[in-house]
Amino acid sequence: MAVLQNERNHVFLGSFIHSSKLDELKYMHQTAVFVDKSGKIAHLEHDCNEGKAKTILQQKLGWDHADTEITSTGEGDFFFPGFIDTHIHAPQYPNAGIFGKTTLLDWLNKYTFPMESSLSDLSKARRVYSQCVRRTLSHGTTTAAYYATIDVAATNLLADLCVSLGQRAFVGRVCMDHEDMCPEYYRDESPDAVMAATHACIDHIRRIDPDYALVSPILTPRFAPSCTPETMTRLGRLAADADLPVQTHISENAAEIALVKHLFPEHATYTDVYDSFRLLGPRTILAHAIHLADAEADLVAARGAKVSHCPCSNSSLGSGEARVRFLLDRGIGVGLGTDVSGGYSPSVLEAARLALLVSRHLAMPHHEAARRHGGGGEEEKDADDDEAERAKLSVEEVLYLATRGGAEVVGLQNRVGAFEVGMEFDAQLVRLGGVPETEQQQEEEQESEDNGPVDIFGWETWEERLAKWVFSGDDRNTKKVWVKGRLVHSRLR
Amino acid sequence: MAVLQNERNHVFLGSFIHSSKLDELKYMHQTAVFVDKSGKIAHLEHDCNEGKAKTILQQKLGWDHADTEITSTGEGDFFFPGFIDTHIHAPQYPNAGIFGKTTLLDWLNKYTFPMESSLSDLSKARRVYSQCVRRTLSHGTTTAAYYATIDVAATNLLADLCVSLGQRAFVGRVCMDHEDMCPEYYRDESPDAVMAATHACIDHIRRIDPDYALVSPILTPRFAPSCTPETMTRLGRLAADADLPVQTHISENAAEIALVKHLFPEHATYTDVYDSFRLLGPRTILAHAIHLADAEADLVAARGAKVSHCPCSNSSLGSGEARVRFLLDRGIGVGLGTDVSGGYSPSVLEAARLALLVSRHLAMPHHEAARRHGGGGEEEKDADDDEAERAKLSVEEVLYLATRGGAEVVGLQNRVGAFEVGMEFDAQLVRLGGVPETEQQQEEEQESEDNGPVDIFGWETWEERLAKWVFSGDDRNTKKVWVKGRLVHSRLR
Repeated sequence: MAVLQNERNHVFLGSFIHSSKLDELKYMHQTAVFVDKSGKIAHLEHDCNEGKAKTILQQKLGWDHADTEITSTGEGDFFFPGFIDTHIHAPQYPNAGIFGKTTLLDWLNKYTFPMESSLSDLSKARRVYSQCVRRTLSHGTTTAAYYATIDVAATNLLADLCVSLGQRAFVGRVCMDHEDMCPEYYRDESPDAVMAATHACIDHIRRIDPDYALVSPILTPRFAPSCTPETMTRLGRLAADADLPVQTHISENAAEIALVKHLFPEHATYTDVYDSFRLLGPRTILAHAIHLADAEADLVAARGAKVSHCPCSNSSLGSGEARVRFLLDRGIGVGLGTDVSGGYSPSVLEAARLALLVSRHLAMPHHEAARRHGGGGEEEKDADDDEAERAKLSVEEVLYLATRGGAEVVGLQNRVGAFEVGMEFDAQLVRLGGVPETEQQQEEEQESEDNGPVDIFGWETWEERLAKWVFSGDDRNTKKVWVKGRLVHSRLR
Repeated sequence: MAVLQNERNHVFLGSFIHSSKLDELKYMHQTAVFVDKSGKIAHLEHDCNEGKAKTILQQKLGWDHADTEITSTGEGDFFFPGFIDTHIHAPQYPNAGIFGKTTLLDWLNKYTFPMESSLSDLSKARRVYSQCVRRTLSHGTTTAAYYATIDVAATNLLADLCVSLGQRAFVGRVCMDHEDMCPEYYRDESPDAVMAATHACIDHIRRIDPDYALVSPILTPRFAPSCTPETMTRLGRLAADADLPVQTHISENAAEIALVKHLFPEHATYTDVYDSFRLLGPRTILAHAIHLADAEADLVAARGAKVSHCPCSNSSLGSGEARVRFLLDRGIGVGLGTDVSGGYSPSVLEAARLALLVSRHLAMPHHEAARRHGGGGEEEKDADDDEAERAKLSVEEVLYLATRGGAEVVGLQNRVGAFEVGMEFDAQLVRLGGVPETEQQQEEEQESEDNGPVDIFGWETWEERLAKWVFSGDDRNTKKVWVKGRLVHSRLR
């Protein structure tokens, strides 16, 4: 088990699209991106063609032609940064789509804990985890922040699979030792047991990837109700001492918030609980953050903690609609999480689509108006209308959250999320389907490559193509995926 | 141009699943469905195998073996009724996914009217319409209620394509003649012009499908604001005299409702406008019906008019969340519409998924509680909680809406939507992907048949398989599609 180095340098030539800022995509056509053997972007050249690229790689970079692969894309194809899934439960993958009419707390007991605990069977874990990693790669996920289970061997197996299949990942052994809150069949025995198991997983990852070049451990107290104060105290200390990232859940639904209030009566808020245990820092990923009060959001911002917005589970578990604009306005870093299997889809592209939809549900007039003052005067209404309008996320914004936003959430904003010199090449090659000109060609088309349901007629602007990708695209459009310059998925024969 | 008759009888053998009632799916395994040359289900036999089926077709039905095709499905495959799309704008198909941050009225002017008017170019119309019909067939849509454009020739072309490609359809030439409300470049000249064009389309369909066996005309006043009172009067009279179905839009967003109030000050409500023009009858399909007041819903119910729920555009145009349970409770027939391109997806399966999600947004606590009494007492809150819980639609319910519900909306409840003797065979063969047991098999799997992102591990119940299909399924799972017993789409080589 070792992180693979690429054998050759690689020049990618064609159209590159990435987020230049929150609400803006940058379209770079006829561009060459030069990726060295370590997977880093060594150079980027606009207005380039294959001839010019060959000159540059030799004269400017001192690369051998024989030692360099060149990949040119077809007309209309484009490279896009790989997606970053800031919140996904790998062991819940088989339950995707299975949640009935449950909400968070009964969903945990009915579907989630039984599935997670069953993965102490390593052959089952191998089957589930490898399918999860393969699938997310096929959806263009180049980085994932995984929750595993409480089982050390299965958690280490997940880390192994990320290394061997080539996905950048944060792998967290789940900590949960609160007697009253965790089922007897699926619980850590004590704070000591929590810490021993946590260290075992950290040590394993340090062995297989000493520099955390691809896979990194992440401290994972499931959520406040499932951990004893002592466990949280010790995890908070470890996070600070070893400078490790932390991931947990916060403020997902009303019953959960009431439970935290009940369990931690001495704390002012849910956010305050994590803060008091030193679990709220710049390397903390908070999943959901749907119902944060103003003061809580201010505290999150002050600590530099980040939020993983999980629109799919917002909708499917009926938890609520996270106020992304409200968080962004406070300077909080926000990325997207699929939250499999609270969310039913392992695709970050679908999470982006749903983030856009959830923001529109949040913006619907009956919400804001009714929530704030049950109707109100006309002037107030206008102000509300403006705020509602602002709540809406655009195609550009959700793609930012899926890439650069996610990179910031997992602390990799200088390494991935865009095509910039010095960053590592985590990317996907996207191809959208074209609609043939004639009916005969349409019939023939059915026999050829399956480019999924996106239909490009040819008159669309690039902005419209991106919108069509976000709304109708799927894994069929993600033809190839690279992590650190290594090809980790391909649909092309 | 003629509706094709099947050359042979056909026996389908395997698992059949359909809605037995709103909240119940019936699973019929080892079942044989016998379909005669006219496409009708002549017999249905449970506990059947191929040998038994051969005996039955000969002895009971008097069919020749040589004249009968037998299709057996693989383990885990199942037949499901074809989907019914009760509201789709074929000419807007190229705009799917393109709507930006617009809402209904500006969306019409910015994206919709320009695209629709451009389809008076018949070669463009042919390309767009044939792609739309092919795609919807590939998503399992066996019946569609289409809005075309104001152009007679292009509308007739759409009807021709439905006949030749084999999709059951209602094809409506759009009527819009209100000077102030329709753009000058895309408007009927007068009520006389409306009626002449409408009759021209009806006559054309009568020529190509005299019995409306597959394609039927449908009167299509776009929506109240776009039609003059005289046009609505005359369309209402024609609907009654010729017993023709009617489709229009109602109560989609706040600005539109205000506009109707402004244009028709003498009418109590939006619903009352249609009713007064005799456009509200048992053969009327009302798209959206999001913000209907109680009295309006009662009037819709009293007239026996039906509702096409379009969850995708509810979310994407931010129109609101239609109260499906509220409508069903009043005995109103409800089906699903994709509302392309107010909705971004031409898939009814995706509409079913989104119907479930939209119902959860409707059920979110801050809505009901805030909307009704801005917080309220505890008792009221409990009542609200119950009502919110009831608002949630289940997997079974959204599949009912997609099939039997839709059949009722388009008036075909005795002909399609389920597998019953006497009904016509409009069906899809569904196959979900299996997860290989070993990693090596997983690698090989990537090379073989693409069954889409649904992953069946093997331990799932049938109910769970159906849930996975609804949440993660796509056109790759719809392997074959039949309308009236005729194979109209196949992904299998």
